[in-house]
Amino acid sequence: MAIRTLIWGENVHEQINKTVAEIYPEGMHNQIAKLLQSDTNLSVKTTTLQEPEHGLTNKVLEETDVLVWWGHRAHGDVADEIVERVAQRVWEGMGLIVLHSGHFSKIFKRLMGSPCALNWREAGERERLWVVNPGHPIARGLPAFFELENEEMYGEPFSVPEPLETVFVSWFQGGEVFRSGLTYRKGAGNVFYFRPGHETYPTYHDETVGLVLRNAVNWAYNPLRFPDITEAPNVPVEKALEPITARGGSLHESGEEGFR
Amino acid sequence: MAIRTLIWGENVHEQINKTVAEIYPEGMHNQIAKLLQSDTNLSVKTTTLQEPEHGLTNKVLEETDVLVWWGHRAHGDVADEIVERVAQRVWEGMGLIVLHSGHFSKIFKRLMGSPCALNWREAGERERLWVVNPGHPIARGLPAFFELENEEMYGEPFSVPEPLETVFVSWFQGGEVFRSGLTYRKGAGNVFYFRPGHETYPTYHDETVGLVLRNAVNWAYNPLRFPDITEAPNVPVEKALEPITARGGSLHESGEEGFR
Amino acid sequence: MAIRTLIWGENVHEQINKTVAEIYPEGMHNQIAKLLQSDTNLSVKTTTLQEPEHGLTNKVLEETDVLVWWGHRAHGDVADEIVERVAQRVWEGMGLIVLHSGHFSKIFKRLMGSPCALNWREAGERERLWVVNPGHPIARGLPAFFELENEEMYGEPFSVPEPLETVFVSWFQGGEVFRSGLTYRKGAGNVFYFRPGHETYPTYHDETVGLVLRNAVNWAYNPLRFPDITEAPNVPVEKALEPITARGGSLHESGEEGFR
Amino acid sequence: MAIRTLIWGENVHEQINKTVAEIYPEGMHNQIAKLLQSDTNLSVKTTTLQEPEHGLTNKVLEETDVLVWWGHRAHGDVADEIVERVAQRVWEGMGLIVLHSGHFSKIFKRLMGSPCALNWREAGERERLWVVNPGHPIARGLPAFFELENEEMYGEPFSVPEPLETVFVSWFQGGEVFRSGLTYRKGAGNVFYFRPGHETYPTYHDETVGLVLRNAVNWAYNPLRFPDITEAPNVPVEKALEPITARGGSLHESGEEGFR
Repeated sequence: MAIRTLIWGENVHEQINKTVAEIYPEGMHNQIAKLLQSDTNLSVKTTTLQEPEHGLTNKVLEETDVLVWWGHRAHGDVADEIVERVAQRVWEGMGLIVLHSGHFSKIFKRLMGSPCALNWREAGERERLWVVNPGHPIARGLPAFFELENEEMYGEPFSVPEPLETVFVSWFQGGEVFRSGLTYRKGAGNVFYFRPGHETYPTYHDETVGLVLRNAVNWAYNPLRFPDITEAPNVPVEKALEPITARGGSLHESGEEGFR
Repeated sequence: MAIRTLIWGENVHEQINKTVAEIYPEGMHNQIAKLLQSDTNLSVKTTTLQEPEHGLTNKVLEETDVLVWWGHRAHGDVADEIVERVAQRVWEGMGLIVLHSGHFSKIFKRLMGSPCALNWREAGERERLWVVNPGHPIARGLPAFFELENEEMYGEPFSVPEPLETVFVSWFQGGEVFRSGLTYRKGAGNVFYFRPGHETYPTYHDETVGLVLRNAVNWAYNPLRFPDITEAPNVPVEKALEPITARGGSLHESGEEGFR
Repeated sequence: MAIRTLIWGENVHEQINKTVAEIYPEGMHNQIAKLLQSDTNLSVKTTTLQEPEHGLTNKVLEETDVLVWWGHRAHGDVADEIVERVAQRVWEGMGLIVLHSGHFSKIFKRLMGSPCALNWREAGERERLWVVNPGHPIARGLPAFFELENEEMYGEPFSVPEPLETVFVSWFQGGEVFRSGLTYRKGAGNVFYFRPGHETYPTYHDETVGLVLRNAVNWAYNPLRFPDITEAPNVPVEKALEPITARGGSLHESGEEGFR
Repeated sequence: MAIRTLIWGENVHEQINKTVAEIYPEGMHNQIAKLLQSDTNLSVKTTTLQEPEHGLTNKVLEETDVLVWWGHRAHGDVADEIVERVAQRVWEGMGLIVLHSGHFSKIFKRLMGSPCALNWREAGERERLWVVNPGHPIARGLPAFFELENEEMYGEPFSVPEPLETVFVSWFQGGEVFRSGLTYRKGAGNVFYFRPGHETYPTYHDETVGLVLRNAVNWAYNPLRFPDITEAPNVPVEKALEPITARGGSLHESGEEGFR
C-alpha cells in the first residue's frame, strides 16, 4: 500500500514576494509534491496554513503516514491546538519531515524540547552537503556530496538534541558548517530535519534534493499506530505478571488513575 | 566554588497524607537536601511550589547551578510561565535532575518533547537497580546493584527520547523492568532522570540513593552560561569569515532579524 | 527481490549434547532458518562452522544480504581471517544479526571494540522481554512483552558500546535485567544483537522469537554495498572542489597514498 | 590528586623530516606535553614508540589516568600485544585521547570496530573548527569557532560509529567538512578523537588547541578502575538474588566457567 504523504506549506511568501512567486508559481508545497510523486510508492497530497484547521484536521491526520513541513514567516500563526494535535500524531507513529526554516516552527521546537537556534545569512552562497553516513537509508543512491549553488547559510551551533544519527553535514562558501540531516524518534514517530530549502532559491527544483526527500519519507514511514502512547495505565496488584502482595503505605486505590 | 544546588519540592502530600508526613516530617525536599549536604562540594537550598513564583524567581535561578525536581500530585499547578523560565535556564546551562513522578512534570515533558508515559503500580514491591554503565560518573562508587525493598513500580515502555546514555535499569518483583537512570543534554544543560522516590516509602532515607543524587548533581554541573542560546543571529554578508558576494533573490535586508 | 539471508550455525552442541540434539534434531541453524522462511520477502540459506572456510567464502558473502550468527562453544575455532572477511563485508553494507552466546563471538567483539561481557546463569528460569521502543521496526507487530519460560540468564553490566537504540530489556526470574535487543551501524552495515537462544531450551521454536528475527533481517537489509569503505583516498590539490594553492611543508607528493 | 597524563609520541617524522624537526625540535610529544602542563590539575609525562614495549609497560599503564596518542607513519610498528594491553586498560577505565592521524592507529581502529577511513589532502589549507556542542565539557571556554591557518584536510565520510556526542565540526578551505571532535565510552573508558595535528604545521603551538586538549584530558578522567570488566562470571543458582530452582537441560555445572 502506498505511503500516504502530506506536504504542508505555509504558502505566504509565494503570495507576497515576487522572487518566490517566480520560482514557485504553483506554491512551494506543490513543487515539493512533484519531487515526491516520482516515487510510485508514495501517495502525495498537499495542504496549507490557510485551510480550516490549517488543513490538519483529525481526519486528515488519520489518513497521513508521513507529514512534510515547510514554514517560515508565519510560524506564529499556527494555532497551538493544531501543534499539539500534530505532536500527538507523531508520537503515535506518523512520520515528520521538517524542512529548512521549519527549525523554528512550533511543531519542531515542541518535539525537540530545545532552542533549535542557529546562525544565518541570506546571500545566495554555495552549499555543499556531504553524506557522512552513507549506509543510512536516507542517503541511499546519493553521491558522496551534492551542491546547491545558491542557498541561505545556516551555521552551528544548531541547538537541537544530539540526534540518533547525523546523515549530512553542510559546507558553506562563507565559512560555516551545519549538521544538515538529523534523525530522531519521538514516541513511535520518526522525525527527520533536512536543512536546504530557502524560498528565494530553486532548491526544490533540484533532483538530488528530491531523492533525499523520497528516501526520507520512506525511512520515516511506520505502518503502525500507538494511540495509547501518552497514557500511563495502572497495573493492579492482582494483575501483576509475577505474584506479589501489596505492602507499605499507598496514595492510590488499586486500578485508580495517576496524577498528571 | 561550591555547586549551588536547589531542591524543588511540591510539598503537597507531606501536608495532607499521614503516611507521607510520617516518613518525611520535614518535607521531602528537606530530606533530599540532607542527602546532598554530605557532599561538601555542594551548597544546598530548598524551595517549594507554595512560594511566590514557586520559589523559582529569576534571581533564584540565576544563583542556581543544578535544580533537583520532585513533584507528583500538583504538576498542573505549576505555572506555564515558570516552566518556560526553567526550560530557558536549562538551555543556558543549568543542570536539572528530575525525580520519580517528575516524569510527568511540565518541565520534564517540555524538555523531552515526548509523552514520557509509563505503566505503574503502587504495591510497595522490591526494586533492584542494576548499574548498566559502571564507568559513568553518576555510577561512581556504586555497587553492581542496589535494592529498595518497597517502591512503586514503573514499567516500560517509557516513552522518552533515546538517551545519551542509560545508567541504570530496574528489576521489579512483579515482573517489569524500567530504564531508571537516563542522561540528556538540552541546549547547554545536562538533564538526568532518576526513577526511585515514591512518597509513601522511605527512598530518600537510603544512603545509596543519596550517593546517586550527589553524583548526579556533580555530573550535571556546568560552570558556564549561554544566555544567547535561543537567539538566531544574522551574520551580515560583509562579516562573512570568507569573502563572499550576495547573489540571488532575498527576503531580508542584511543584518535584519529572522522570522519566528 | 528477496533479501538473501544466511544462517551461520556453529553446529557443535547439536552433535555432542543429547539435550540439544533432541530440541534441534536438524541443527539449530535449520530451525532458525524455518523461523525466517515464513517471510516470503526472505531467501534463506544455512551454513556451518564445519564447512570449508566455515561456509563463508568470498562468493557466499557476496551473495549474502544479511548474516545471522549463532555460536557458543567453538568461538575460538573460527579463523581470524574469516572474522576479518565478515567484518569487512559488514562495513561494506551486509547486515549482521548476532544471537545469544554470540556476544562473545570473535565477529561481535571485533565490531564492538568493547569487552561484550556479562553475568550468566543456566537455570532454565523465566525471561520476560519488554519492548522499550515500540515504534522501532524490529518491534513491529509484537505485544508489549513476551515470555520465554526457560532461558539462560544474562545479567548487566553488558559491556557493549551505547547502542543507537535499545529495543528490548529483559526481566529474569532470578532478579537480573539485561538490554536484550540493541542496534548498531558499523560502516554501512546494520548490526542487531538479540539475547535469547540458549541451546538447551526450545527458544527457536517460539513464534514471537521468529517474528523478532524476521523483523530484524528486514531492518538490517541494506541493498547497497560500499566496497571502498576502508580506503582513505588522497584528494589532490588540483582536484579540490574550491580552488586552493598548496602551502606550508608536506610529507607527501600530491596524490600519494597515506600511511597505515 | 593530579590526573596522571601520558603523551605517547610516535617520534619518527621529527627525526627524519626536516620540516617537522624545525617545528617540533624537541619532538611532538614534548610540545603536546607543554600544552597540557599549564593545567596544574594534570601531571604530565611522555613516552615514545622507541622505548621498550613502546613505553607502555603494565607498570606505566597502571600509573596512567589518561593516555594521549599521536602516531602516523609507524602505525604498523606498534606491536599487537601492546595494542591489546592498551585496549584492556581503556576498558578498565583509563581515558584515551586520539589525535589526528591516529584515526588509523591500531588502538583506535581496535576500539572503534569500524574502518575509521576518510579523505585527505596535504595542502596547508585553512581549517575552521566550529563548536557544535557548546555545553560539552570539552568545549569549555572556547570561542564559537577557531581557525588553524595551515592544516591537512580530512574529509567525510569518516567511517566511525555514531558518537555519543559530536563536539566539533571542521570547515576546510578546499570545500570539505569533518566531524573533528567525537566522544565515545568503551567499557569504562572515555575516548575522544580530535582531528587537528598534522606534523608539518605548528598546530600544537596553538593555544586554543591546548585548551581543547586540557579540557579533553579532564573530561576523559575516570578515577575508578574495573579490572574485571572483560570477565563473564557465572552466578550459581543458589546465589540468585531471588529464589529459583534450576529447570530444563543444561550444558554447565553450577559455577562452571563459560565458553569463550
